Amino acid sequence: MDTSSLLLLALDLIGTFAFALDGSLTAIRVARLDVVGVLTLGMFTALGGGIIRDVFIDSLPPATFSDWRYLAVAALGGLVAVTFGPHMHRLKLPILVLDAVGLSLFAVSGALKALDFNVGLVQAVILGAITAVGGGTLRDMLIGRIPVVLRSELYAIPALAGALVVVIADQLGAPDAPAAVGAAALCFGIRMLGVRFDLNVPSPRGIDRDA
Amino acid sequence: MDTSSLLLLALDLIGTFAFALDGSLTAIRVARLDVVGVLTLGMFTALGGGIIRDVFIDSLPPATFSDWRYLAVAALGGLVAVTFGPHMHRLKLPILVLDAVGLSLFAVSGALKALDFNVGLVQAVILGAITAVGGGTLRDMLIGRIPVVLRSELYAIPALAGALVVVIADQLGAPDAPAAVGAAALCFGIRMLGVRFDLNVPSPRGIDRDA
Amino acid sequence: MDTSSLLLLALDLIGTFAFALDGSLTAIRVARLDVVGVLTLGMFTALGGGIIRDVFIDSLPPATFSDWRYLAVAALGGLVAVTFGPHMHRLKLPILVLDAVGLSLFAVSGALKALDFNVGLVQAVILGAITAVGGGTLRDMLIGRIPVVLRSELYAIPALAGALVVVIADQLGAPDAPAAVGAAALCFGIRMLGVRFDLNVPSPRGIDRDA
Repeated sequence: MDTSSLLLLALDLIGTFAFALDGSLTAIRVARLDVVGVLTLGMFTALGGGIIRDVFIDSLPPATFSDWRYLAVAALGGLVAVTFGPHMHRLKLPILVLDAVGLSLFAVSGALKALDFNVGLVQAVILGAITAVGGGTLRDMLIGRIPVVLRSELYAIPALAGALVVVIADQLGAPDAPAAVGAAALCFGIRMLGVRFDLNVPSPRGIDRDA
Repeated sequence: MDTSSLLLLALDLIGTFAFALDGSLTAIRVARLDVVGVLTLGMFTALGGGIIRDVFIDSLPPATFSDWRYLAVAALGGLVAVTFGPHMHRLKLPILVLDAVGLSLFAVSGALKALDFNVGLVQAVILGAITAVGGGTLRDMLIGRIPVVLRSELYAIPALAGALVVVIADQLGAPDAPAAVGAAALCFGIRMLGVRFDLNVPSPRGIDRDA
Repeated sequence: MDTSSLLLLALDLIGTFAFALDGSLTAIRVARLDVVGVLTLGMFTALGGGIIRDVFIDSLPPATFSDWRYLAVAALGGLVAVTFGPHMHRLKLPILVLDAVGLSLFAVSGALKALDFNVGLVQAVILGAITAVGGGTLRDMLIGRIPVVLRSELYAIPALAGALVVVIADQLGAPDAPAAVGAAALCFGIRMLGVRFDLNVPSPRGIDRDA
């Protein structure tokens, strides 16, 4: 396995773990689901973004599905959440931080994999963002919440920014690994600004279901 | 580019613009989302149907994703909605008309593209309808509404009718462009009858969530 | 057509019929939809799982879409529900039994088809479970319910168990048909235990939407 594939795999697996933990803790905290529901929501959250990405670039079966390491890491994240969740689930912040970690790593890995498949530069940026927001969007749809990508100003934006940096660095011939770390850090930083903002300003936006 | 491809592209792009505007105005009116949320819902609504179509016929990456014009037109629709939306969003009718325009054009373009990929006649009709209702269904799922395709008697029906006319005309060897315009007009006409009916008879159907 | 393909087709078609009936009756009972909405929800429920399966293994266009028999059987299930539904829809049990039948048959057919496409043993089990839970998950998302796969302890588990038996039997060289029937019966039995348990213990789990 060459360095570039290894980088992609490492980003993907850490992001998968973060999203599995995030989805499972959300299941405990918000939807009060039982163990199987908690693990299932964790799996969907962890694997959703990568599956959408791989369907789009016709890399089927999806890596997140055909490679046992993704399944194992996602299951591990869910099991950690089930084991330690009851001690963590009052804490809203860990869930938001884990989600931001997953968002950042998937924005980068999505853009890198799209570049490998030669889909065009703008498309690589968009595909990175879709990979990043896909899991959380699926998570929120499954538990009946408006997806965070629609609710928060700073969710799609940092994902696009992270993916953009990856694509620009690639075009400039910069080495992959430092560019990936920098892009993920940028995405994470912007997202955490958004989280901080949202925490201070409780969102009153309701849905007018009759409209 | 031959005439047939050009026709398909024109139908697709106008439909994409209409759905982007529709999705973004819906985000403003119904879900009270912020700018990024408005643009995102517009993009999802505009690109959803075509992506599902292209996944089904294995035309990957999806045209709506790999061709920058779709992305540009969808973004433009969202920006128009953000700019002029505050002056339009009390008007329920523009949203319904735009949705009917998108529905009609996508029913036709979906059926035409399916015929190009030789998926069978019944399948071409169904695929046209899926392309037509896909974006609006995704839009409604994302904001937590029962999708209009389930709520309205005349949403799937006009889409199927439009796609059926395209397939019949193709089998009879009729020229593509007039057939496409006629099929779209038929779909639009039936749908607007449904809208008029729905406007006069406010739907009381609620969901019994405990059932 | 060889025996193995015939077995797969039979399992798929009976499962499709059961899920179409289940989805359509659910539309009548829970969401109070009109005829077109009832048929549409039946089609989505019946075809959803198989479509996801075929996208994952890159068997496109999806069999459930390109083969007219799936469409015909799904439509038939919906029409039966529309015709006899008003006499059945107070009965919660028929819906749950039909859903369990579809779950069991799709767990088996999903795993069998995955084995045909050589996706790996663990993946075949997972793919069987995804095929089984896919239709019901889509059904619940469309009508705004938390999907049963998240709500019920015994929904993903029996699907995984049924698919696991299929994969083990295949590895041991057991004949397909008896293994398939046994696996489906096991899945159905575990699921019905879950249904009985759920019926006796009304689930108080609500969603805290503000969390």
